[in-house]
Amino acid sequence: MIAYDAPVKQVPLSMATSPFDSSIYRELLHDDDVGALFTDAAVVSALMRVEGALARVQGRLGMIPAASATVIDRAMRELQVDPASLAAGTRAAGIPAPALVDMLRDTLQAPDHAHYLHWGATSQDIMDTGLVLRLRGVCDIVEDRLTRLLRALARHAATHAELPLAARTRAQIATPTSFGAVVAAWGAPLLAHHEALAQLRPRLLRVSLAGAAGNAAALGDQVERLRAELAAELALGDSELAWHSDRTALVEFAALLVRINGSLAKLGEDCIVGCRSEIGELKLGAGGGSSTMPQKQNPVAAETIVSLFRVAAAMNGLMQESLVHREQRDGVAWALEGHALPAICMASARALALAVALVDELQPDPEAMLANLCGGRQLAFAEAISFELARTMPRSRAQAEVKRLCSEAGGGAGSLVELVARRYPDVDWRAVTTPAAQLGDAPRQAARFVARVSEI
Amino acid sequence: MIAYDAPVKQVPLSMATSPFDSSIYRELLHDDDVGALFTDAAVVSALMRVEGALARVQGRLGMIPAASATVIDRAMRELQVDPASLAAGTRAAGIPAPALVDMLRDTLQAPDHAHYLHWGATSQDIMDTGLVLRLRGVCDIVEDRLTRLLRALARHAATHAELPLAARTRAQIATPTSFGAVVAAWGAPLLAHHEALAQLRPRLLRVSLAGAAGNAAALGDQVERLRAELAAELALGDSELAWHSDRTALVEFAALLVRINGSLAKLGEDCIVGCRSEIGELKLGAGGGSSTMPQKQNPVAAETIVSLFRVAAAMNGLMQESLVHREQRDGVAWALEGHALPAICMASARALALAVALVDELQPDPEAMLANLCGGRQLAFAEAISFELARTMPRSRAQAEVKRLCSEAGGGAGSLVELVARRYPDVDWRAVTTPAAQLGDAPRQAARFVARVSEI
Amino acid sequence: MIAYDAPVKQVPLSMATSPFDSSIYRELLHDDDVGALFTDAAVVSALMRVEGALARVQGRLGMIPAASATVIDRAMRELQVDPASLAAGTRAAGIPAPALVDMLRDTLQAPDHAHYLHWGATSQDIMDTGLVLRLRGVCDIVEDRLTRLLRALARHAATHAELPLAARTRAQIATPTSFGAVVAAWGAPLLAHHEALAQLRPRLLRVSLAGAAGNAAALGDQVERLRAELAAELALGDSELAWHSDRTALVEFAALLVRINGSLAKLGEDCIVGCRSEIGELKLGAGGGSSTMPQKQNPVAAETIVSLFRVAAAMNGLMQESLVHREQRDGVAWALEGHALPAICMASARALALAVALVDELQPDPEAMLANLCGGRQLAFAEAISFELARTMPRSRAQAEVKRLCSEAGGGAGSLVELVARRYPDVDWRAVTTPAAQLGDAPRQAARFVARVSEI
Amino acid sequence: MIAYDAPVKQVPLSMATSPFDSSIYRELLHDDDVGALFTDAAVVSALMRVEGALARVQGRLGMIPAASATVIDRAMRELQVDPASLAAGTRAAGIPAPALVDMLRDTLQAPDHAHYLHWGATSQDIMDTGLVLRLRGVCDIVEDRLTRLLRALARHAATHAELPLAARTRAQIATPTSFGAVVAAWGAPLLAHHEALAQLRPRLLRVSLAGAAGNAAALGDQVERLRAELAAELALGDSELAWHSDRTALVEFAALLVRINGSLAKLGEDCIVGCRSEIGELKLGAGGGSSTMPQKQNPVAAETIVSLFRVAAAMNGLMQESLVHREQRDGVAWALEGHALPAICMASARALALAVALVDELQPDPEAMLANLCGGRQLAFAEAISFELARTMPRSRAQAEVKRLCSEAGGGAGSLVELVARRYPDVDWRAVTTPAAQLGDAPRQAARFVARVSEI
Repeated sequence: MIAYDAPVKQVPLSMATSPFDSSIYRELLHDDDVGALFTDAAVVSALMRVEGALARVQGRLGMIPAASATVIDRAMRELQVDPASLAAGTRAAGIPAPALVDMLRDTLQAPDHAHYLHWGATSQDIMDTGLVLRLRGVCDIVEDRLTRLLRALARHAATHAELPLAARTRAQIATPTSFGAVVAAWGAPLLAHHEALAQLRPRLLRVSLAGAAGNAAALGDQVERLRAELAAELALGDSELAWHSDRTALVEFAALLVRINGSLAKLGEDCIVGCRSEIGELKLGAGGGSSTMPQKQNPVAAETIVSLFRVAAAMNGLMQESLVHREQRDGVAWALEGHALPAICMASARALALAVALVDELQPDPEAMLANLCGGRQLAFAEAISFELARTMPRSRAQAEVKRLCSEAGGGAGSLVELVARRYPDVDWRAVTTPAAQLGDAPRQAARFVARVSEI
Repeated sequence: MIAYDAPVKQVPLSMATSPFDSSIYRELLHDDDVGALFTDAAVVSALMRVEGALARVQGRLGMIPAASATVIDRAMRELQVDPASLAAGTRAAGIPAPALVDMLRDTLQAPDHAHYLHWGATSQDIMDTGLVLRLRGVCDIVEDRLTRLLRALARHAATHAELPLAARTRAQIATPTSFGAVVAAWGAPLLAHHEALAQLRPRLLRVSLAGAAGNAAALGDQVERLRAELAAELALGDSELAWHSDRTALVEFAALLVRINGSLAKLGEDCIVGCRSEIGELKLGAGGGSSTMPQKQNPVAAETIVSLFRVAAAMNGLMQESLVHREQRDGVAWALEGHALPAICMASARALALAVALVDELQPDPEAMLANLCGGRQLAFAEAISFELARTMPRSRAQAEVKRLCSEAGGGAGSLVELVARRYPDVDWRAVTTPAAQLGDAPRQAARFVARVSEI
Repeated sequence: MIAYDAPVKQVPLSMATSPFDSSIYRELLHDDDVGALFTDAAVVSALMRVEGALARVQGRLGMIPAASATVIDRAMRELQVDPASLAAGTRAAGIPAPALVDMLRDTLQAPDHAHYLHWGATSQDIMDTGLVLRLRGVCDIVEDRLTRLLRALARHAATHAELPLAARTRAQIATPTSFGAVVAAWGAPLLAHHEALAQLRPRLLRVSLAGAAGNAAALGDQVERLRAELAAELALGDSELAWHSDRTALVEFAALLVRINGSLAKLGEDCIVGCRSEIGELKLGAGGGSSTMPQKQNPVAAETIVSLFRVAAAMNGLMQESLVHREQRDGVAWALEGHALPAICMASARALALAVALVDELQPDPEAMLANLCGGRQLAFAEAISFELARTMPRSRAQAEVKRLCSEAGGGAGSLVELVARRYPDVDWRAVTTPAAQLGDAPRQAARFVARVSEI
Repeated sequence: MIAYDAPVKQVPLSMATSPFDSSIYRELLHDDDVGALFTDAAVVSALMRVEGALARVQGRLGMIPAASATVIDRAMRELQVDPASLAAGTRAAGIPAPALVDMLRDTLQAPDHAHYLHWGATSQDIMDTGLVLRLRGVCDIVEDRLTRLLRALARHAATHAELPLAARTRAQIATPTSFGAVVAAWGAPLLAHHEALAQLRPRLLRVSLAGAAGNAAALGDQVERLRAELAAELALGDSELAWHSDRTALVEFAALLVRINGSLAKLGEDCIVGCRSEIGELKLGAGGGSSTMPQKQNPVAAETIVSLFRVAAAMNGLMQESLVHREQRDGVAWALEGHALPAICMASARALALAVALVDELQPDPEAMLANLCGGRQLAFAEAISFELARTMPRSRAQAEVKRLCSEAGGGAGSLVELVARRYPDVDWRAVTTPAAQLGDAPRQAARFVARVSEI
């Protein structure tokens, strides 16, 4: 056993400052798909891919010898780099690219060709372009999961478009609505996020190639053509204005992911409440147990979705600060992205995966919904009753009258419907207070949501 | 004098918890245009405008009596409401709409008509739609200022496209670039913001009309038509899915404003550094004085632009949290918007106004730029020299050689250019190290920026 | 009516960017006591008080002529300054002190004396000391309310030390506890805050007098004595190390206020849940109504307490950033405090006031508590039953057995207690599952809390 | 090479969502000492240590059989647990403790004893106490480094107490001060942090033992004695009030660490500015190189110190939110701590280590300081000159006169000292404008700081 009192130096591979990187929390918090894009190996691999593409294009354009381009390109595909070997160089430079370039040049063992590796580029060109290549993968993952989640929600919305339950406003039972409308309200923001992601892609997925200080001075006169061809080579967009110090698109992407997390957190909180012991309207699938309370079915997935939102939201404060990228390169502001962006991507992708599973397994309990809606004092029908009364008296008097009856009902005199029926026997109160009569636009909202999802 | 030890109760009008609302900081921090949209009077006025429009449309559709609609409509245009009179009701309900509706009904002194005021709507419908009407004004102000700022930047970029200065990366002099390229880098993110604002408008500027619990149950079967006509009446977009608990568009708007603030803060920090006593490359217009140091010219506007970013960024944490809008209405989450959104709007609009003035008055000092670039050890030419040497030796050797010479120059042996000329006399080093020879793509970047601005 | 379409320029006094400063939200959000310390008038008054004290002490020490000291001292007590008159100067300098000093010197109309106003001080000395004088008032207000709140909680803890209710963990009914223990858990952090506030006072309430650049060069050799006597004159602590660029104590104070807000928010969230329609264990006093739902009793105070926490927490991000106070004075970092600190003070003081009222009016409903605890499936007794069974079988078998019975109870086979009694008839299950038998340490926790409160 | 296009599933050990956990950034960002406390193995080890201590004490008190206590105690010391084996259970429960308890019971292969493992405790008791054991190590590390840093600063303060340089306020040269005073200003907040840490320890380092719902119902009547003895066994403080839902001390600790980071970030920013190419007053030791610019000496350590502050500050938003720990246990709020606290601890410890090395290697350049102070227009003496003139004319006239001369100096008419000497030849301006004459209290501030450090 590892003795607590005398901690041995940990080997590098077990570092777990973030629970995202912990083997204990791996199945709960780690997303394998996004995780694969943010391993040390993936970081290095993307950098090498960019260097290889740069050499290929420079070779084609005659900016470097064709033979050198070929050697470099092949090496970038085949060389194995141990990320840990970059640690000392990264400590010295703050970033891994210089150490990687040095190591690659050494490893090539062909000085005449090695010379042309990274030709005219600066570390930030390679690192930013490599990042974008990996973010393209994140976009794909997020888009795919958004779509799957929307479809899962649409199934519930379609099935339960007319299933009545009590709407709650400000933690109080309000009026009847339908579960389909509740689900549509969960899904509506996701439609907006899906659209926003499509709009953002061209702004985000761009090459960077601007040289030491943003003006590509070492790249010569062909720089515009070189940049355009490099972009094409990597299936990215071109960037006619350098973005070394302009982190807008990254910040916009992070903010979008946070909005996704926020919408999921709303769904998560609603599920936590809906499955409370005292409410019981939602069954969430297999919940978590307790070490001492045998009955517990904790809403682990829903809780985790909410906490992942807060993680992403906090990290977004860092991303925002990265906008203040001073002068032509700011070692402080730039470093913030490395702390924030992978965590936000992980939190979004993981929350989406949890939400897909949660929604897939989610089961509404119609009986519990009906009991909460129509049981007890039946106050959920107060608005409907007041509108009915307002047919024959001023609305203010109707509201006051219903308020008085609600108070009596609260005092134990009976349910609101009984009390109003006793006082105003001429109205068919059963018709007014049938849940189905009070769903209003809810079923149509559910239907409109289903229709919108079917279009994506 | 107001005695400190025995503070009299302050009258309401002098409350200044936020410096945005302080008469002391009024000229520095308060934006009159945005401020006019967030006064108490403007809040109430917008609510009444929505109530009036709702009555007009409901009258037209026969949902309420035409005569009532006319009375209500006129009253909503003519009644004077003292916002302070809503304070007690707002304390009771957490929001001002119920108190306003009660007061308006009373003031109408026509119960038969008053009855139909706010017919079938819920407070949130009116408050959200009223907010959107005011945010439309914010959009206009922000768009206008973005455009003006872009044009001011484009003028500098055009004029100074070839004015050399030292690029600084990580707070060190890097290589030569041009002031026009620096200005283009300031402006590039603003082009993205301008585009994003146009894309966001339709998502943001939508009516809300969904009734007590989001399903418009009290509005009857015509709700879809009613909502569409109300939207048209107010020149807003329709919202086929209720957005009571979906705050996405507001959060997206806030995030965009924070990005604007962040881009301006980058410009602000660069100006603070550029006008430092030891650098002196930028003249910022009239600076602020000191109470004891006669020589001081503090960069007040630039400082304020940076601090406004941090205010907006912090407030955006609140906006993000508003996404977790629980169930069908969440009194906690909803309240956060009222603290965050006006402050973010104010911070953005004010920072834009300050930036327009700052950029208009900004004067680069070409002599100081040249002195910092070519004076002293001339290290800014190290990259250029190493590329020149790399024509005749491996790049790694060239880099090592230049590094050695830089070190000698740092030790006082002379400038880098002198040292390299002594060691490699066959090269025309004057040509290599003329700033104009090292501007690379900078003048073209400036020109591309100018061209992009001319298209908006 | 103020027309929306043509907004007139607002007069300064109606600015309401922050709802703290809005006449609409005045009764809900504005704290009159703290508000009186953050009006523009209070800001100016505190600055003048510091200038007056400085002149008195400098006169006593012979650093300025005694006659000048007398004139200045009297003027600082008697002059009336319109804060708005400082707006132009504040725009120029970023801070009001230089404009105030200029105006005061002019107003004195005695150049020979005016000369000695602000002698050797810098604006920051006066502003920081003036701020501290006002923060002393905030400390007093917060301490007083913490004490009142603790006493109100102690009354509930004492009265309801043995009132059983269901503890909820992770939104699920867990095991029995007592309401007194719940209240003690609300109060426990407040005891820590009360202690921390006492510890912080000496670090926070210190004079600042360090001159233009922190070394008091213009104050001569007596500066240490002068500073000590100025501190005594203002009943503040001395500060032997200059704190112009060291904002630690302010940041520590803000963090403490946020912790107070956080503890209140926990109480607030628990109250919101406890008064839900489906739970009904807590009565919160007069709740807020709805504009359309007559039955609604919204938990406005509790909601507001929670939202005020989030406001304070967000603002604390700004306060933290103020620590990065660059060089000897940083116009960016310093400005952040003015946005954050008054808002945090207001949010804390207001939340405390709301919490005192909320707790005073709070009524537990013992019947509802019992119904939620012992009604239905009685799962709250699962742990107690499993421990009872573990007397005669391995604990793991006992847990598995109870888990199985819980599942049967969930399936409708009866309550857990009925099921276990049927299966294990030899145990006196009524004794085991009497709530009073399962309170454990809860009544003693309540008592310990009461005892702790009685000591403050 | 790992192909980018077809990412293989990463093995768990290479997860690097956080750069703190990346092997690439290991030498730059990872702190081995704190890291050893936050590995998965350390987490598990601490949990087992608490379980062992609990059994020992329960055995001693006769709450469980002595033989069982002995078996459990030994097992907790000797068993080897693979953290990854807890991943599935952690996914189910959201926390690792239930899975660990199950696994340990199984592994014991002695049901009669295993039964008594975790007797009467709840997962949170074990996890919170285990966390506190590890935080004690963090406290030790932080205290040690604070002391070392203070001593390193005190050495500079003592050596350079009278070394003149220009104070800068608001990014402008202000007046002379001494480098010793600048260093004292860096160190002053650290003294406060050192004191605050000592005060916090007893609040933070407490045992948790409160059972399923905070009332220790399953622990019987001896719970107070049990808890006290467990505390003693682990060398922690007792906690008479349960703190399951009271996260105050953790939040206070996090806030203190953020303040430490903030103070270091101020030092870091000052170093970044001080070693700028144009200023050159500070030499920072070995800086980072560039991949393309041979002359670069990037201030990597200082940059990293600043960025670590922003990471910690952002994470503190999460910690603050953990205060809203709803009801008796909140699965959302609790989870936030696991994301925030290790990262904050890591950021603080690492920034402290970097700062110790930075300060140890830091070298002021007296010549550069003198050149920036006395070179050029000599505006740093404006205040001193105006005070000298104020001996013979009203201060306002003196200020205006100096302002005019500063403006002339700015226009190229000569240095301020030359101009004033020409206009007022009777004063010995050389004496007035000797840096040593204008240091004021600076050397004494340095000395007071040194004295304060010598006391810790």
